[in-house]
Amino acid sequence: MRLTDRQLHEYERDGFLFLPEYFSADEVALLRAELPTVFGIDSPALIRETGSGVVRGVHGVHESNPVFAALVRQARMVEPARQLLDDDVYVHQFKINAKLALIGDVWEWHQDFRFWHEEDGMPEPRALTFGLFLDEVDEFNGPLMLVPGSHHGELAEVSRQPGAEGWASTLTSSLKYQVRAETLARTIGDGSIVAPKGPAGSVLLFHSKILHGSAPNMSPRNRTIVLTTYNSVSNALADVPEPRPEFLASRRPVPLVSRTADDLAPV
Amino acid sequence: MRLTDRQLHEYERDGFLFLPEYFSADEVALLRAELPTVFGIDSPALIRETGSGVVRGVHGVHESNPVFAALVRQARMVEPARQLLDDDVYVHQFKINAKLALIGDVWEWHQDFRFWHEEDGMPEPRALTFGLFLDEVDEFNGPLMLVPGSHHGELAEVSRQPGAEGWASTLTSSLKYQVRAETLARTIGDGSIVAPKGPAGSVLLFHSKILHGSAPNMSPRNRTIVLTTYNSVSNALADVPEPRPEFLASRRPVPLVSRTADDLAPV
Repeated sequence: MRLTDRQLHEYERDGFLFLPEYFSADEVALLRAELPTVFGIDSPALIRETGSGVVRGVHGVHESNPVFAALVRQARMVEPARQLLDDDVYVHQFKINAKLALIGDVWEWHQDFRFWHEEDGMPEPRALTFGLFLDEVDEFNGPLMLVPGSHHGELAEVSRQPGAEGWASTLTSSLKYQVRAETLARTIGDGSIVAPKGPAGSVLLFHSKILHGSAPNMSPRNRTIVLTTYNSVSNALADVPEPRPEFLASRRPVPLVSRTADDLAPV
Repeated sequence: MRLTDRQLHEYERDGFLFLPEYFSADEVALLRAELPTVFGIDSPALIRETGSGVVRGVHGVHESNPVFAALVRQARMVEPARQLLDDDVYVHQFKINAKLALIGDVWEWHQDFRFWHEEDGMPEPRALTFGLFLDEVDEFNGPLMLVPGSHHGELAEVSRQPGAEGWASTLTSSLKYQVRAETLARTIGDGSIVAPKGPAGSVLLFHSKILHGSAPNMSPRNRTIVLTTYNSVSNALADVPEPRPEFLASRRPVPLVSRTADDLAPV
């Protein structure tokens, strides 16, 4: 349940860790079985693709769905989060990105902390995200792309997209805060982009400041990922004039008690 | 200057051939040096990206630019085209797709012959395209994706995009003829998608009926490709009510004389 020194070093250096088949096929099946339910309930927390109107993702269902409630308490996620953040943690944001076959659209390059800092009042980038693959991720279904090491240093400059107002503009294919092309080019430099791929059950754990994005899903296979963001309890959100809905940014920094029993039985 | 039996068999089976570093670095440099000129002349043949308005591609400049005029006559392209089509050939269409860094947008899945048949009156799919990489192509800058073997059988069903009228709608990121998601899924089946990658100078040679597309360019590196389509002279275009401009579909099926001297000295 704890990361090794080598993994800690790798995370510090690169800003991410890839953990192949971190969850079993049976666990994945259990989680996937909940998708029709959570994607089927229309609410403001359900985001649709521009144009096609099909599901792009859903937020905050760890509060209502017992299987996802059990997931976010898994010691396999909570304990490494506590270890990396050196503090108790709570779920700041939970979402399931559908990225459906041939439909799921681009996520432009961004840093999560830009949104959480400016929109939600998160003081420091002491948060991280577990991205759990519910489908196999390959080069064609829109894998998450990252710039290794980009969590170091200052936040990348952004252009504020004209007309982007309200929280909905923080969730669409044309993001409210757009990293400038020249900034991205400078950050990547002669370095690389990486896109970890692997079977369903694999986990991509990444820093709240790492530059990341993803291409559209060009394949006939879904690329559904469950993204659980843990924040340090001592890094709870400050007051902001217009807070986003609770399903996008929790204002209840109650330390999570991890489930030592390593199963996904409903909480 | 001729393809081997093995290459002929591979092309017949898969619908494409990948020829790494088919042109030298010096030749690539010579061709790239012309890009500012051909992308800098505003004309109906210059297509811009939706939204950003930057160059998406330019058509037909093999008629005006002496270096590209020399390129389309290269024996390295003309002779394999004659061999595969078993006939004299002419240039049906010539374009340079810019796919600029962080800007170049998606090309949805499509079959070229659908457009050439319906828009231009091309009788049979006896045409093929040489895609010459002017930049290194990797998994992040929007590589051309193909479905091996999809040139066999019937043309895939398409939906006609509502409101798509006129030739411009055949060139944008939202194509006039869209392959239905279920058709694509059925065509790919349990099979694969491939995206050949390689250094500048490499060539991807593909059948006019193969299903292909490409994701946006998510990287800070351009992905410029020169696409030369040869048609069999005995497969010249039939009359159509509203022919597209000559820079999109040539109506002069004059057999090309290949240049045996293997250089790109201006014609």
